[in-house]
Amino acid sequence: MAALGDQSEEQAMAAQPKPQNRPISNIVIVVAMQTEALPIVNRFQLTEDPDTPFPQGVPWVRYQGTYKDLNISLIWPGKDPTLGVDSVGTISSALVTYAAIQALQPDLIINAGTAGGFKAKGASIGDVFIVSDCAFHDRRIPIPVFDLYGVGLRKAFVAPNLVKELNLKVGKLSTGDSLDMTQQDESSIIANDATVKDMEA
Amino acid sequence: MAALGDQSEEQAMAAQPKPQNRPISNIVIVVAMQTEALPIVNRFQLTEDPDTPFPQGVPWVRYQGTYKDLNISLIWPGKDPTLGVDSVGTISSALVTYAAIQALQPDLIINAGTAGGFKAKGASIGDVFIVSDCAFHDRRIPIPVFDLYGVGLRKAFVAPNLVKELNLKVGKLSTGDSLDMTQQDESSIIANDATVKDMEA
Repeated sequence: MAALGDQSEEQAMAAQPKPQNRPISNIVIVVAMQTEALPIVNRFQLTEDPDTPFPQGVPWVRYQGTYKDLNISLIWPGKDPTLGVDSVGTISSALVTYAAIQALQPDLIINAGTAGGFKAKGASIGDVFIVSDCAFHDRRIPIPVFDLYGVGLRKAFVAPNLVKELNLKVGKLSTGDSLDMTQQDESSIIANDATVKDMEA
Repeated sequence: MAALGDQSEEQAMAAQPKPQNRPISNIVIVVAMQTEALPIVNRFQLTEDPDTPFPQGVPWVRYQGTYKDLNISLIWPGKDPTLGVDSVGTISSALVTYAAIQALQPDLIINAGTAGGFKAKGASIGDVFIVSDCAFHDRRIPIPVFDLYGVGLRKAFVAPNLVKELNLKVGKLSTGDSLDMTQQDESSIIANDATVKDMEA
């Protein structure tokens, strides 16, 4: 989901190294909001799966299709059943990503969407970023080692050819469940050395 | 996980109404930290399941056993594989709860553990609370309707007989991923009318 900031960015995170030495064929794209999902759905002519592999009762939506020799599934957590807004945030994102891994065994997961960016770190409106590292800025646990757990720093899948081919910017991302940014969030985002800020990575 | 506060409390949240008109027989207890889990494991003489119903590679632990005519599974997210600390916080809690629902089809889920409490709201050290309502204090999304989604208010399962029988206190709980409490968190906790604060509800 787009986060507040003086710049708007797009980020794509590839989180899963392929398990064997074979071409990537099964791709899952996780997207938080329908307005972020639909341009991808339309570009790849994906169709909504009427019989998703997810449990009955969850609002999670799968769009699927093929592109060249790739099977593509775009997973969107759907609308909150009570409130009707997109199920944004890290919990929904983690749940659908887990369920998609279990059901679809992807070779590659791409977490894509709009994000906030920091001009002082070199981001501009319309930039497309590929994320090199991902960390939390709103899980403050000031106990040794738990503090590192809270930050949860992860390296994303390295994709140098993609970066070169598409001339993408590369930057670190900081994630959290709030759209605004408190002083404590800002300190953590600076500590995370983040160029990009989102709510679902 | 225990949260900071001038009082320490225990809370138990029963989140799942029984689906049919039959006695509750299958109970899942979700606990964030091993030190919180072991007294329950010992009390009910639960044993660690060497062959959990969870995917290979996850650190999630299931202790199981029976008490009278009840099947009890205690699920603990386990230790972070890299850092070795308990996998506290809302994301781990949501993932193991989801996976436990899928694998074990419980009639009742109890989210139990230590928590912070607010003296001004009537909490004292050693109190045992049953939670009536649960909401987030660290998902600030200041857009109409999304703001309500972020707060995510949920009613817990009502258990008046349990409250009466065990003479429990009843209160509202506010949850979030940080152990400390910023000014913004405090405002949200007050808005949530919370007596109890934890990190995994």
